[in-house]
Amino acid sequence: MNALLLVAHGSRRQESNDEVTLLAEKLRTSCRDNFTIVHTGFLELATPSIPEGIEQCISDGASQITVLPYFLNSGRHVVDDVPEIVAAVKKEHPDTDIIVAPHLGASSLMVDLLIDQAKSASVG
Amino acid sequence: MNALLLVAHGSRRQESNDEVTLLAEKLRTSCRDNFTIVHTGFLELATPSIPEGIEQCISDGASQITVLPYFLNSGRHVVDDVPEIVAAVKKEHPDTDIIVAPHLGASSLMVDLLIDQAKSASVG
Repeated sequence: MNALLLVAHGSRRQESNDEVTLLAEKLRTSCRDNFTIVHTGFLELATPSIPEGIEQCISDGASQITVLPYFLNSGRHVVDDVPEIVAAVKKEHPDTDIIVAPHLGASSLMVDLLIDQAKSASVG
Repeated sequence: MNALLLVAHGSRRQESNDEVTLLAEKLRTSCRDNFTIVHTGFLELATPSIPEGIEQCISDGASQITVLPYFLNSGRHVVDDVPEIVAAVKKEHPDTDIIVAPHLGASSLMVDLLIDQAKSASVG
């Protein structure tokens, strides 16, 4: 089974973490054709951690896990921290295929999304 | 003329600010039908500031400006800081229609974008 792990930075504000959890719930109902399992993992300041999120995916039966960094900029967290954490967990689970997707900000659809967002506001 | 002001947090890492500037350039070439003018404004740590970005839009001839917060979470910056800064600038420009769009993370297209991003990685 394919799993999607939505990875966010984590915040001291519980509301921000709840927004990520809610987004994962929306993903869970929308991407069943491609990902049977969806969990979250936070880099810091919130739980579950990224390793805990990966473990949840595996214990749910995932054979492939796509780690998706919910970050806008390709800063240190995206370039170094997330891949290093994932690489460490991979060593413990050599039979599980774990890949890290490009971060959200790198999406080719971002421009279209921003234009849609701006248009809907200016019309309203 | 309609203007779009892409508002980001700003970073000590110049590369992160450059990514926002590059995104604004992509917007500039993609949204001409809806927004003739596109500028950036940073909340902190980088320039132009949000007021400076609004002034650039006005000096380019904007009569309506849509301020689009490039933020994932509805934290203090999105809820308080950006609207307060925009409200202060609006007082100086009562003839310009300035609205603040919902922040990026609130987009109804976010789930689809994330699924697309995850799918393209897991296929590759």
